[in-house]
Amino acid sequence: MYVDLGNALSSVASPGVSRESLDRLDEDVAVAHERIERGRANAEHGYAALNLPGTADPDAIKATVEPVADAEALVIVGIGGSALGAATLADALDSEVDTYVLDNVDPEHTTALLDDLPLSETAINVVSRSGTTAETLANFLVVREAFETAGVDWTERTVVTTGEAGPLRDLAQKHDLPVLKVPDGVPGRFSVLSTVGLAAAAIRGDDLDALLQGGRDVAESLSGSLFEAPAYAYGATTYALDTRGASVNAMMPYAEGLETYAEWYAQLWAESLGKDGLGQTPVRALGATDQHSQLQLYRAGPRNTMATFVRPRERIDRAIPATDVDGLSYLGDATLGELLDAEFEATEASLAAAGRPNVRIEIERVDERGLGQLLYGLEAACVLAGELHGVDTFVQPAVEWGKNAARGLLGAEGKFEEARAVEEKTRLRVE
Amino acid sequence: MYVDLGNALSSVASPGVSRESLDRLDEDVAVAHERIERGRANAEHGYAALNLPGTADPDAIKATVEPVADAEALVIVGIGGSALGAATLADALDSEVDTYVLDNVDPEHTTALLDDLPLSETAINVVSRSGTTAETLANFLVVREAFETAGVDWTERTVVTTGEAGPLRDLAQKHDLPVLKVPDGVPGRFSVLSTVGLAAAAIRGDDLDALLQGGRDVAESLSGSLFEAPAYAYGATTYALDTRGASVNAMMPYAEGLETYAEWYAQLWAESLGKDGLGQTPVRALGATDQHSQLQLYRAGPRNTMATFVRPRERIDRAIPATDVDGLSYLGDATLGELLDAEFEATEASLAAAGRPNVRIEIERVDERGLGQLLYGLEAACVLAGELHGVDTFVQPAVEWGKNAARGLLGAEGKFEEARAVEEKTRLRVE
Repeated sequence: MYVDLGNALSSVASPGVSRESLDRLDEDVAVAHERIERGRANAEHGYAALNLPGTADPDAIKATVEPVADAEALVIVGIGGSALGAATLADALDSEVDTYVLDNVDPEHTTALLDDLPLSETAINVVSRSGTTAETLANFLVVREAFETAGVDWTERTVVTTGEAGPLRDLAQKHDLPVLKVPDGVPGRFSVLSTVGLAAAAIRGDDLDALLQGGRDVAESLSGSLFEAPAYAYGATTYALDTRGASVNAMMPYAEGLETYAEWYAQLWAESLGKDGLGQTPVRALGATDQHSQLQLYRAGPRNTMATFVRPRERIDRAIPATDVDGLSYLGDATLGELLDAEFEATEASLAAAGRPNVRIEIERVDERGLGQLLYGLEAACVLAGELHGVDTFVQPAVEWGKNAARGLLGAEGKFEEARAVEEKTRLRVE
Repeated sequence: MYVDLGNALSSVASPGVSRESLDRLDEDVAVAHERIERGRANAEHGYAALNLPGTADPDAIKATVEPVADAEALVIVGIGGSALGAATLADALDSEVDTYVLDNVDPEHTTALLDDLPLSETAINVVSRSGTTAETLANFLVVREAFETAGVDWTERTVVTTGEAGPLRDLAQKHDLPVLKVPDGVPGRFSVLSTVGLAAAAIRGDDLDALLQGGRDVAESLSGSLFEAPAYAYGATTYALDTRGASVNAMMPYAEGLETYAEWYAQLWAESLGKDGLGQTPVRALGATDQHSQLQLYRAGPRNTMATFVRPRERIDRAIPATDVDGLSYLGDATLGELLDAEFEATEASLAAAGRPNVRIEIERVDERGLGQLLYGLEAACVLAGELHGVDTFVQPAVEWGKNAARGLLGAEGKFEEARAVEEKTRLRVE
């Protein structure tokens, strides 16, 4: 992973960070790095996720999913951190296995998906650490019923990823399902390089070793200076820009396969840093497409936004055929990849020319190793930013209220006072 | 379309708008409405888009696409406003015609798509008002070549949507292609109810009349008071919240089929209002999925965000099967739709309980009429917000610099000084 901070400097952009401020910030990075290393050494909650490139066991994962290794299609049943990592890998990496993610409880969507699937050739990976996630369990019950209706033995097609105990663990034991354990100390949004993200990747035939090698590449570069560790360079710069007014961070990869990666990033950033009134708002964009959608705002709107441009240095390219159309002949000398790269550099420069801060991240290729670098790199960047902000990066307490309210509305047993607040909604209707 | 502003009031949220301030703002709405009506009456640039429910000619569109009405698959070749409207309709409405959008110049993605398509049964709708959009023309040249290589006559499978003149118009005439004219005065991001969005919808067999009827429903409700016009109620409230500190507007539909609608909204909002240092940053989210991704930030992060929750009042539902799993039995009494609606109301209430402003928008169903209402409604809301901010809603000057730079980088003839700035990039690399 390569990071270029040039367009984040105050000599280029406002908000921007001066070279001197970066030097001062580097002292805080050294302190934060020590805290991170201590957390990793003790496998503390959250920090343990940064050990996954060493602690994950790809052979065990491959062995466990072996019963469904013949699948033509795969459905990942999970939500949030139990789905986004696997979905990111599936979007970015080619596979013979058609992969779908059931991460919402929309009845029409779920029905349409199940009607289309070749169930007897389909593998299910149901993922929930607690084994109680309402959306995931509801979907899994519906999927199970669809298999039964079709006369396909769902117990032969299902791999479970869950915690040490809980309803899903019980169910796996009862039906003798292959089950992978979510490792301790790894929050969902930091779990892509664990059983949570890698089970689906193994079923798809992705190269787990290369994914973990990518993670190791970046792990080995972590050091007490942002000028030596690309992941820290990114994390420290986003922190510096945020505290100087860049409250929005638009993640804009220039590769279709990285569209879901931007979604994964948005969860990582929002849940980890969005607390105590702090936190950059992550915005997911896609280059070159969103130049025709978001760029006007980023260049001419409020000075509250930084952009992060991501691209692979190599692509499998395709020539643009020559044309007789007047005014377009310049395209015929180029490839689609050259056009995309020209747009990447032009957009980056257009923000810099308008004094808008941006950072460039590059990987060699959109392949397992490059993805491992990008995913681990952003995780390490996020942990560092959390240390610098002084927030508790690995919790997400603000989502509990809504979960309780929903449970109460559905009539779950227990005292869910939050449900009453729903009934008392303030109304001002315009029809 | 129904709008509920209750959770945007200052009695509930901060930032929030007082009932008295809304009354004062309503006087500005009356003035803005007069300006909008004058623009519509004179079919001025931009305002003309709000006349489309009356001026679009669905029968002419259906007749023009008749030669490809037998298609099994459809590829929309366009970008930004030339793609997002049609993509929104395709995502939301069922069709027998598999629909793909080629709105990026990623070589690997383009090749993978073309390799998978049954070209002899595929229709192409290439869309560019100017007929010079680099990404669209490059993709179209590649698509044309793929047809030729496969021995399929692309001129029999292509419908062009473009302006009165330009390279694409010339090409259509040269090859005698069916061609639809982009109406005058309709910017791309306001063009979904014109030939730009409706050509693809017609090929897919969507009900164009119902789409336009939905637009008319909202158009007829526009009046000089935000308390009588749901679209203005939304536009005025977003303006009031923005000026009070809600610089981010997270659009969160609770329906899988509306995921692309949130993307369409993001372009509408960003390009129309993001200028002169103003403009809310649109964020696209999806309920219930992103409760497990973004909600922590919206509830506990900076007080700079409003949320817009959108849902249909009716869904084709599906029961959650009963379960023997302990602690989940409450799910077995519910349907997926009830679970989704409980989460909608719980999330809305959870933001209100934390004093975070939000607005509810509802339509009857995710069908043509509901979509027509939602799309037209947000356009009218955006035009109103633009009037209140005093910006030029219908232009996007800030994107030109990057276009010139990209052209220069690719060696197009002419003087593109912007390309030199790309070479002079400030670098601070960490590897």
